[in-house]
Amino acid sequence: MDEEVYPLVGNDLKILQKKNLYRFGLEAVLLADFVQGKRGQKAVDLGSGDGVIPLLLAYKKKIRVMGLELQKELVDLSRRSVVMNGLEDLVEIRQLDITGVSHYLDGHSFHIVTANPPFFPQKEGRQNPDPSLAVARHELAANLEDFIAAGAFLLRAGGSFYLVHRPARLLYIFSLCEENQLEPKKMRLVYPRQNKEANIVLLKCVKGGGKGLHIMPPLVIYEGNDYSQEVQEIYLGG
Amino acid sequence: MDEEVYPLVGNDLKILQKKNLYRFGLEAVLLADFVQGKRGQKAVDLGSGDGVIPLLLAYKKKIRVMGLELQKELVDLSRRSVVMNGLEDLVEIRQLDITGVSHYLDGHSFHIVTANPPFFPQKEGRQNPDPSLAVARHELAANLEDFIAAGAFLLRAGGSFYLVHRPARLLYIFSLCEENQLEPKKMRLVYPRQNKEANIVLLKCVKGGGKGLHIMPPLVIYEGNDYSQEVQEIYLGG
Repeated sequence: MDEEVYPLVGNDLKILQKKNLYRFGLEAVLLADFVQGKRGQKAVDLGSGDGVIPLLLAYKKKIRVMGLELQKELVDLSRRSVVMNGLEDLVEIRQLDITGVSHYLDGHSFHIVTANPPFFPQKEGRQNPDPSLAVARHELAANLEDFIAAGAFLLRAGGSFYLVHRPARLLYIFSLCEENQLEPKKMRLVYPRQNKEANIVLLKCVKGGGKGLHIMPPLVIYEGNDYSQEVQEIYLGG
Repeated sequence: MDEEVYPLVGNDLKILQKKNLYRFGLEAVLLADFVQGKRGQKAVDLGSGDGVIPLLLAYKKKIRVMGLELQKELVDLSRRSVVMNGLEDLVEIRQLDITGVSHYLDGHSFHIVTANPPFFPQKEGRQNPDPSLAVARHELAANLEDFIAAGAFLLRAGGSFYLVHRPARLLYIFSLCEENQLEPKKMRLVYPRQNKEANIVLLKCVKGGGKGLHIMPPLVIYEGNDYSQEVQEIYLGG
């Protein structure tokens, strides 16, 4: 069988993964950790893939999360992960195209939106020959603009939009956020090593928020051959 | 006498400072170090204060630098520092208002522009009661827009604009750069300590440059009670 059970948060949470389907990466785990949310708040994860962000938000923060995912195989797989962890009361996965989200869901209805969109524009870099994997890495089904517009539509006033992306596109991200009344309030740069360029940016925007960006302490992934203390805590922490 | 000689780059370079006049801070030293320039290139420093950036660029990188400064006392003081270091062939200080720079200087005439503008808008935070000091910290004589417009005017196509400022205004900085065809290419965040929010941003923009921002490794100022290794090298290095 090409399916395996992968441990999250030590061994307390588990996620099903399948060869030839999207499997979460470090950036999704960092984004889930970056979210500030309270028990009972409503969140939506745009393009939820194998369900890693909904599972982590529900398990770690007791947030109610709706995951929106286009691919049926990933929807099925992540639904089974939800059941396996007994998180049916907190997590719902729906098969939806985020570009049409306003036809299916009410606007202004969520406290939190999370998005880990494809990192690369359609024509940049090598595309995965497997269409199911290509869509997670390249902007084939939905682009950054679609993700940010969907988030802005779904959020309540004062709600928070959390995005993980590449630093190279930071200016474009800021301009899209501004167009959509999402004010960047908190940013964290992720550096693979202390002496390397940042390769991931975590951003929190507030819908209709006031001006003033805070840049949080640097997050460094590796020290020597190991994950840094902080990353180990993020992976293991409850 | 209220004047003193302050050592820069070990003891090889010296700068005159006067009580009750602007004296350079760490951010100016970091900006000068951030500049990538070649011997013989022409640079202009907007609002050169006590002349620290022109002196460092000339001494360390053999760049020809024109410093533009509004306050006569600072112009006189920095001119004497230039002579004291024997850098008259490389550094010229002119008493000019940067908001009127197009009346006095040719456009498209410099390879490099540096700017360490006042960090605070006119109405934000406490103003220094001494007007000469207030103007260096608050946007009284010229604001960020004036600095960026002056830089864009003076630079050749492909020339580099170097700015040091506060992270809180990063979005505004990016939007002003875009309006002025200055493309942000390289950014470095400066963190007072490894676990603190960034309080300084160093930015390099290229006039008419292509898209794609690189975020350089984090620059951390203090480790324990001392400057970090890198900051010590910046202060002492030749």
